[in-house]
Amino acid sequence: MVWQTQLTLAPRPRGFHIITEEIRQALAGSRQRSQANMPQMNSPQSNIPKTGLLHIFIQHTSASLAINESADPSVRRDFEAHFNRMVPEDPSLFEHTLEGSDDMTSHLKSSMLGQSVTVPITNGSLNLGTWQGIWLCEHRNRGGSRRLILTVIGE
Amino acid sequence: MVWQTQLTLAPRPRGFHIITEEIRQALAGSRQRSQANMPQMNSPQSNIPKTGLLHIFIQHTSASLAINESADPSVRRDFEAHFNRMVPEDPSLFEHTLEGSDDMTSHLKSSMLGQSVTVPITNGSLNLGTWQGIWLCEHRNRGGSRRLILTVIGE
Amino acid sequence: MVWQTQLTLAPRPRGFHIITEEIRQALAGSRQRSQANMPQMNSPQSNIPKTGLLHIFIQHTSASLAINESADPSVRRDFEAHFNRMVPEDPSLFEHTLEGSDDMTSHLKSSMLGQSVTVPITNGSLNLGTWQGIWLCEHRNRGGSRRLILTVIGE
Repeated sequence: MVWQTQLTLAPRPRGFHIITEEIRQALAGSRQRSQANMPQMNSPQSNIPKTGLLHIFIQHTSASLAINESADPSVRRDFEAHFNRMVPEDPSLFEHTLEGSDDMTSHLKSSMLGQSVTVPITNGSLNLGTWQGIWLCEHRNRGGSRRLILTVIGE
Repeated sequence: MVWQTQLTLAPRPRGFHIITEEIRQALAGSRQRSQANMPQMNSPQSNIPKTGLLHIFIQHTSASLAINESADPSVRRDFEAHFNRMVPEDPSLFEHTLEGSDDMTSHLKSSMLGQSVTVPITNGSLNLGTWQGIWLCEHRNRGGSRRLILTVIGE
Repeated sequence: MVWQTQLTLAPRPRGFHIITEEIRQALAGSRQRSQANMPQMNSPQSNIPKTGLLHIFIQHTSASLAINESADPSVRRDFEAHFNRMVPEDPSLFEHTLEGSDDMTSHLKSSMLGQSVTVPITNGSLNLGTWQGIWLCEHRNRGGSRRLILTVIGE
């Protein structure tokens, strides 16, 4: 089975944010809609395979996705500080500066972290490690809402 | 359905290059070949699923793939400049220097950006964001031609 | 077909390690178990598809996976040295320091390299390039054993 949906995230401030529950709800919401539309299916998880992969893709070039520590908020603050040191917001270093000093640095940070993450699905659930959460990495000062495409493949 | 092909990219100079159209043509070319071989199939998109994923893999350790801004060439020049600052081509820093001063730095850059990208397919097309393009990141001075494996999974 | 297994790697010292053979053995072991359980299947590769993808996921936030050069050990030593320069182990730079000076730096390195790699499967084998190997990137001084989830999708 292949299943896909679009998820629009509300705007968040610049920084690193846990979105694991929003992802889980998007998968669960699909189940509820599926049950309403297809009453012949008895399983409460008819749209989530027992075994497979969830691919999450962000359709933007100045925000990214990662999987990292979900317990201590200081980890996410340290990410923001480290990436600001590693990719300094200094317009004299860049040609592409018309859209603000946080624009080119956001393109760079987003490719260093990546536009997608893929998570195994085991027994119908995301098989994350104990301390792992899914992160939205918002690199812009005012990035606005962000659009994700979730694709599930499995059986 | 699962479909796979190999795509060899012509040599490009060191730097960051948009290859979205070459990827799309490789997918379309497969459709044409498929139609020639299988005249019983009426759909012009018989080899591209309606919904699924395209995985693109580069079979090299000194070039990489990314998804980023496709409109302004200055973004790609700024990537080249930034990665050269972040991974300085200074042989005194490295042991692995026999293949030239751009070799070890290319291995490092390629793992920071990654050997593959995965793009959702929606309604039979790559579901990229408005500003997103697929990039070949050529880190070597003379990298030669580069070989990609494209794998499509969907239904 | 979709197939999944868990692979626990023995503890390794901090640094970059090739694990390609352990991955191949986990896939081959599944074939042997499959043959024992399903004597009606004649193919020695019944659990490995002819064409598809292998997704490898590490369930940790202080170690990561990469695909890079498999021949010369100095490449892996240069990775360790470079990542230590790029992400300096200086507690004065971080808030999250209670678990040791190598903890926050490990979280950062693991997201720069990533929690998963995906490899094409062609003719029933991993379709890696000539010089490519799969790496475990152990960022902690004493990371202990590391758990991977392998998922194969194909046909």
